[in-house]
Amino acid sequence: MASIPYVLIDSFIEGTRCLAYYGTHSFRSGYIAGRLIRGQVSNDDEIAIFHFMKSGNSHSQQVNRREEGFRKFLLDNGFNGTIHSLTMHTDKRDDNIDRLAKFLDGHNRVKAGVVFNSRAHVLGDYIMQTSASSKFRLLGYDVIDANVRYLKSGLITHLISQRPEVQGYHCVKALFRHLVLKESIEPVNYMPIDIIIKENIEYYNNYI
Amino acid sequence: MASIPYVLIDSFIEGTRCLAYYGTHSFRSGYIAGRLIRGQVSNDDEIAIFHFMKSGNSHSQQVNRREEGFRKFLLDNGFNGTIHSLTMHTDKRDDNIDRLAKFLDGHNRVKAGVVFNSRAHVLGDYIMQTSASSKFRLLGYDVIDANVRYLKSGLITHLISQRPEVQGYHCVKALFRHLVLKESIEPVNYMPIDIIIKENIEYYNNYI
Repeated sequence: MASIPYVLIDSFIEGTRCLAYYGTHSFRSGYIAGRLIRGQVSNDDEIAIFHFMKSGNSHSQQVNRREEGFRKFLLDNGFNGTIHSLTMHTDKRDDNIDRLAKFLDGHNRVKAGVVFNSRAHVLGDYIMQTSASSKFRLLGYDVIDANVRYLKSGLITHLISQRPEVQGYHCVKALFRHLVLKESIEPVNYMPIDIIIKENIEYYNNYI
Repeated sequence: MASIPYVLIDSFIEGTRCLAYYGTHSFRSGYIAGRLIRGQVSNDDEIAIFHFMKSGNSHSQQVNRREEGFRKFLLDNGFNGTIHSLTMHTDKRDDNIDRLAKFLDGHNRVKAGVVFNSRAHVLGDYIMQTSASSKFRLLGYDVIDANVRYLKSGLITHLISQRPEVQGYHCVKALFRHLVLKESIEPVNYMPIDIIIKENIEYYNNYI
């Protein structure tokens, strides 16, 4: 029996035998996140990376690559400040809020943070309950409604996005081209990495 | 005889009876340019707006609206520095270079400039011939090869782009929908305003 062809979307997984991958270059998108954060902090400031994990899970390769790219940009561009790393457990809301509040109270040079998956809004919910909320700025991924609310409020300064509908369209098309048209498919297909701010979000999904 | 239907693309012209417009919100794109420049200058710096004009022509409405948006962002966001305005005449290359060199020599707080049409690369050519080239940063419009070269070299920090091929596609589609399908067409259709930097240009035109 022939193996069932499949396409990876959004997050590439190494060591698989996928027909094709459609998504962004994760390292490069993290590198861009680094530039966007770097523009908002001085050398004396500190930065926090927030991880969201389910109990027992490890980070996705996508999140790891984004973080590598992020750190590389800061290294390449003369940022000498401390980069903190704080892990949130998705099922421990009250505990997360406590730990975040203590962390921010104890590190008042942390002016900006980044979340490498779509959960920046969850962190936003926490931050709004701490005394640090007025001066904290956050960068996140993915144009989902909950993130867009914080983009509009100013807490999230940038969202990095990757046209998920267009990714999905191309994945189905790749399967069709392979199965029906018998065409050869390019294995790795990097999508645009879009920079979304409060001022261009209104038009982002128009006429794509 | 019925009038011939037409669609405006890229630049809206008021007072016309076009069937539809496909392009960006010019004021808002200038507002975004303001944010991108503001992030690169301190309150003591100065900014230059460079206009490119053909003899006898006035600025396009698009360029005027972009400039209004740009100035509005700076006004809204506490920029108190001087904004200079310098006009280049498209047919006077040597004269432009002379005037630019004198201007930059005489205004060493001008660290950043903006060109509201696609000619940032022409200014780039001039700047590379002045002593100010190493510290000057430029924002421009439109992903054309000559601009992309300066984006990659770092002289241009941002290009604002508007998916011209997608605009063109929708313009033709609107005419088809009007003439053949007899559908009603939305008159004003704002396209996404894309922020292009050195780190995402490589993927910008992939799979749109």
